[in-house]
Amino acid sequence: MELSARNQLKGKITNVDLGAVMANIKIEVSEPNTITAVITKESAERLGLTEGDDVTAIIKSTEVIIGK
Amino acid sequence: MELSARNQLKGKITNVDLGAVMANIKIEVSEPNTITAVITKESAERLGLTEGDDVTAIIKSTEVIIGK
Amino acid sequence: MELSARNQLKGKITNVDLGAVMANIKIEVSEPNTITAVITKESAERLGLTEGDDVTAIIKSTEVIIGK
Amino acid sequence: MELSARNQLKGKITNVDLGAVMANIKIEVSEPNTITAVITKESAERLGLTEGDDVTAIIKSTEVIIGK
Amino acid sequence: MELSARNQLKGKITNVDLGAVMANIKIEVSEPNTITAVITKESAERLGLTEGDDVTAIIKSTEVIIGK
Amino acid sequence: MELSARNQLKGKITNVDLGAVMANIKIEVSEPNTITAVITKESAERLGLTEGDDVTAIIKSTEVIIGK
Repeated sequence: MELSARNQLKGKITNVDLGAVMANIKIEVSEPNTITAVITKESAERLGLTEGDDVTAIIKSTEVIIGK
Repeated sequence: MELSARNQLKGKITNVDLGAVMANIKIEVSEPNTITAVITKESAERLGLTEGDDVTAIIKSTEVIIGK
Repeated sequence: MELSARNQLKGKITNVDLGAVMANIKIEVSEPNTITAVITKESAERLGLTEGDDVTAIIKSTEVIIGK
Repeated sequence: MELSARNQLKGKITNVDLGAVMANIKIEVSEPNTITAVITKESAERLGLTEGDDVTAIIKSTEVIIGK
Repeated sequence: MELSARNQLKGKITNVDLGAVMANIKIEVSEPNTITAVITKESAERLGLTEGDDVTAIIKSTEVIIGK
Repeated sequence: MELSARNQLKGKITNVDLGAVMANIKIEVSEPNTITAVITKESAERLGLTEGDDVTAIIKSTEVIIGK
């Protein structure tokens, strides 16, 4: 399946922090950039997200704010 | 002003495409990653966004989807 | 690639309306529900979206508002 | 009050999972589709969301990603 | 219908700018604050949005970024 | 740094509620409006958000739904 969301940054998970409902996932995408993703705990568990996993951070273009 | 949004990717604008209401902005953030941001045309004009500008792509962590 | 976004509604495109920067896509997901998706025109063209295509509407759970 | 958000899927709550700050709500919208909504715990409590409630899942069209 | 989205700012439309697919709507919510909302042109037309209309700007709490 | 996000409401924090992963922040922006922002707990701690702080609630225009 190909996605309309153009922004797809490949990286490696460096930390998984599970709460009651949400999970905070750190993804190192390219030196020196780290992406923080907050997803549901159930999705983190369903995907079996663990440190070291190769993943893709996907971001719809309408969600990006520009600072100058 | 410091922002709660942790994901801040520095880059350079490589293209600005203005529509009637929206604008599509390409930002090269780090080889080989390009971020597409869709913002209002009025914000693109207010910030004077042009090719070559150094900008920051800001993304709230709740907006990131993970693919594995 | 499996996605963290749990909400994935399969459907068929019933209309594609291209603007200068954005595109409005109608997806019939199940009688009587139609999903409207607004994506960039370039993504609509890259995916070659046309009436009759089988597609999936993907929605992150943090984007859903509940009305009661 | 009528909403600009066109995507309004009627359904029935099948599960409510309250965390400290957030709540994960499952809504069966039409066989075989289930929508997961993550809202604040305080909104879940203010609306008194419980299994069996008839609710509407509301999604702005700019939040929908298309997969093909 | 009551909404889970807590942020509901009442105001008056001061400008409507229609593009091909999207529309930019200005809402004066309280001196000196103006909210800009970008919605689909079809929703702006369906709701018949015009200058002077009393409307509510609705924002899910997960969409708010804090600057300090 | 100037932001493309036009909606910037100045206010004062009236409550901070920390969960395991997320935090619920109340911001009084102008009588009688209160904005609820849900951000990561780590961002709330990094910014040192406390009752009485002067902050800005930042909202991208594509995230606003209009009710009429």
